Amino acid sequence: MESLFNPKSIAVVGVSKTPGKLGHEVMNNLLRYGFRGPIYPISHRYSEVQDIRCYRSVLDVTDEVDLAVISAPENYVPKVLEELGAKGVRSTIILSGRRMSPLTEVISGVSRKYGMRVLGPSSLGVYYPKHKLNASPISLNGEGGGIALISESKTLGMSMIDFAISEGLEFSAIVGTGGKADIEEQDLLNYLSEDDDIKSILIHMETLRDQKKFIESVRNALKRKPIIIIAGSTEIRKRLEPLRREVPITNDFMTAFDIAAVFLGKKIMGKRVLVVSNSSGAGNLFIESLEDTSLEVPPLSDAFIDDTRIFMPEGSSHKNPLDLTPEASPEIFRGILESSMNSSEIDLIILIYCGSNPLNLEKLQMMLLEMRDLIDKPVIPVFIGGYLSKEVARKLRKDRIPSYVNIANVGKALDFAIKYFESH
Amino acid sequence: MESLFNPKSIAVVGVSKTPGKLGHEVMNNLLRYGFRGPIYPISHRYSEVQDIRCYRSVLDVTDEVDLAVISAPENYVPKVLEELGAKGVRSTIILSGRRMSPLTEVISGVSRKYGMRVLGPSSLGVYYPKHKLNASPISLNGEGGGIALISESKTLGMSMIDFAISEGLEFSAIVGTGGKADIEEQDLLNYLSEDDDIKSILIHMETLRDQKKFIESVRNALKRKPIIIIAGSTEIRKRLEPLRREVPITNDFMTAFDIAAVFLGKKIMGKRVLVVSNSSGAGNLFIESLEDTSLEVPPLSDAFIDDTRIFMPEGSSHKNPLDLTPEASPEIFRGILESSMNSSEIDLIILIYCGSNPLNLEKLQMMLLEMRDLIDKPVIPVFIGGYLSKEVARKLRKDRIPSYVNIANVGKALDFAIKYFESH
Repeated sequence: MESLFNPKSIAVVGVSKTPGKLGHEVMNNLLRYGFRGPIYPISHRYSEVQDIRCYRSVLDVTDEVDLAVISAPENYVPKVLEELGAKGVRSTIILSGRRMSPLTEVISGVSRKYGMRVLGPSSLGVYYPKHKLNASPISLNGEGGGIALISESKTLGMSMIDFAISEGLEFSAIVGTGGKADIEEQDLLNYLSEDDDIKSILIHMETLRDQKKFIESVRNALKRKPIIIIAGSTEIRKRLEPLRREVPITNDFMTAFDIAAVFLGKKIMGKRVLVVSNSSGAGNLFIESLEDTSLEVPPLSDAFIDDTRIFMPEGSSHKNPLDLTPEASPEIFRGILESSMNSSEIDLIILIYCGSNPLNLEKLQMMLLEMRDLIDKPVIPVFIGGYLSKEVARKLRKDRIPSYVNIANVGKALDFAIKYFESH
Repeated sequence: MESLFNPKSIAVVGVSKTPGKLGHEVMNNLLRYGFRGPIYPISHRYSEVQDIRCYRSVLDVTDEVDLAVISAPENYVPKVLEELGAKGVRSTIILSGRRMSPLTEVISGVSRKYGMRVLGPSSLGVYYPKHKLNASPISLNGEGGGIALISESKTLGMSMIDFAISEGLEFSAIVGTGGKADIEEQDLLNYLSEDDDIKSILIHMETLRDQKKFIESVRNALKRKPIIIIAGSTEIRKRLEPLRREVPITNDFMTAFDIAAVFLGKKIMGKRVLVVSNSSGAGNLFIESLEDTSLEVPPLSDAFIDDTRIFMPEGSSHKNPLDLTPEASPEIFRGILESSMNSSEIDLIILIYCGSNPLNLEKLQMMLLEMRDLIDKPVIPVFIGGYLSKEVARKLRKDRIPSYVNIANVGKALDFAIKYFESH
């Protein structure tokens, strides 16, 4: 797998000069993301692309080639693959073709013959910012952000990535499995679970060849990383039934990303939660969403209430969930966080803020950023509202504070995190 | 209830000249939304607000007062209410106070004594654009948009409204029940269910006095309008258990709004759905989400496939769900819609689009708008992606086309709509 994620040199087969074409985008991305080794464009049509000399065949390249990326049309793939195999290329990503392609058999045959690992066909490619590698048609910022995505679907995969980015999430790895002629999820899980930059691994999958092997690899990878599965077909959901108690399996990719987000923040060390909100309605709604989770909302001691009382506006409720009333300013929230940061009664704090006052939202954002470094306990903010609320949650996520707009997903995310950290 | 939603004259008790204060916002909203009858500000402090003469007491007003809105502090409320009762005011909205206020008893006493209907305390107010009434602190566009919201919580209610607006939804009625000293959900349901502008009624509730009465009123209102309940507490969810098969009951307000959105569009006349997408992965994900619904994805006849075949790009799948491949342009989607519009094999069409190309998204938006008037069958678009996808869905919703970004909610919304239209 090393040649797939950390190649020394790359051949790009089927390059194009037309923006929008796969062969253009992938070449462009490899260059733009600063891949450090040599790149060899392979083309029958061009003598150069982007000022880099083209070769008619990979066999014309004299140096070693670690990784090849194929964006040539499906019918060229068998011949190209044979040449890559003969050349001694270690790994190949096939971006072109269809997943259910009749070529899948041919591809896995060539793969076995030469011991060349093949990703695809119809792979979304590989994005691995740690090694400045973007062998995919996806535009990203190249910074890495803790989430790994393995996606069987190319088009849906790209759209899920667009969605995640718009919600403040960033990726430390993206791999498109596509038709899985050779490389399957288990191969990738083994590699990615060793990467300390990755905080959680999302897998979108629709098909599964070897149920036992996959389940075993998930259980193995779970020792090092939380895994969340987006079940892309009814068949897969049924076949993953044995994993149901160990990993979240959902057809709701938005929920899957919300669960992944929780692992960007501090480790959750227990299940006793303090809920603090400027709306009793929001606090109660959150409590209701905890019904099927392991979270506890413990009653607070007199000492705790005495410590926090001075911050609380008139009419506040001093029971957990704390209702600070709509009068609660960012400063009041800060006071509550500071006075509860060392409490041994609670393990984490959920701060729910209803409101769209831009000044208050900005102050809350600043305050939460400051408190991130002052408080050991995880503080999970939830912003209920419109554009501005969504925007604050997005910004805080970029600062590795798991923040939410969908209050109904918070309990699910925490429930998995608590169980995960308890047993791993 | 007529005096609450269609008052001839309004007294505002506890007006303020300070922007941001309740007594300022509500006065401002009443004027700004063009309420047509006389408004009588009541104040001990000011002789005029916004160039309108103030009265020291409602008893000083010589004309009849239909509706009073109280934003004065809680401790003034009993005295004010007595005066309003004595004056013969028909309905009063108490915006101030707390829901669990010990005043609730006093309020319901005065209400009974004078036969004056009282909304609140701690009501979000009443927004009813049909009669140019905005007796609330909420800023809205005043146009009405088919959704009615009854909310027990004031602060959460406002934030849910902000959220809904950011998702392209608009309101034909908003009522805050607050502490429910007198007016309860059943009173409002009876009135709102008669309003033809309202396509669905959402109810957020945390408490319930008379379970039997409420359930009866829901069943009654269901004859005229779909109802969706946001269960704001664990207690309420348990007490509404008997309604579980008749109305969606959820703690996820985002899902609740997504369910409400489906009723903005055409009537759903059957459960046979054609799924058409530019990503097989997205099509399959949608199918998986239908597991617990009544929707059917029927196999397509040869005649149907022959009619649509000419539009389909190479590599398309001709089975339902139709996979048009990422090559599918807005024109290709249009061709499929046109050729299936008169089919007797299907009752509705789900169009799933993955992608962030702004030109394609704009063309799709235009095309769907045109087709809305050409096709009888409902077409439900789902846009999977980031900012631009969310924006197109939002715009189409404003044109009364139920559009989605959360693919996992579409099946839930349609399932309820199909069952609702089957039995009502």
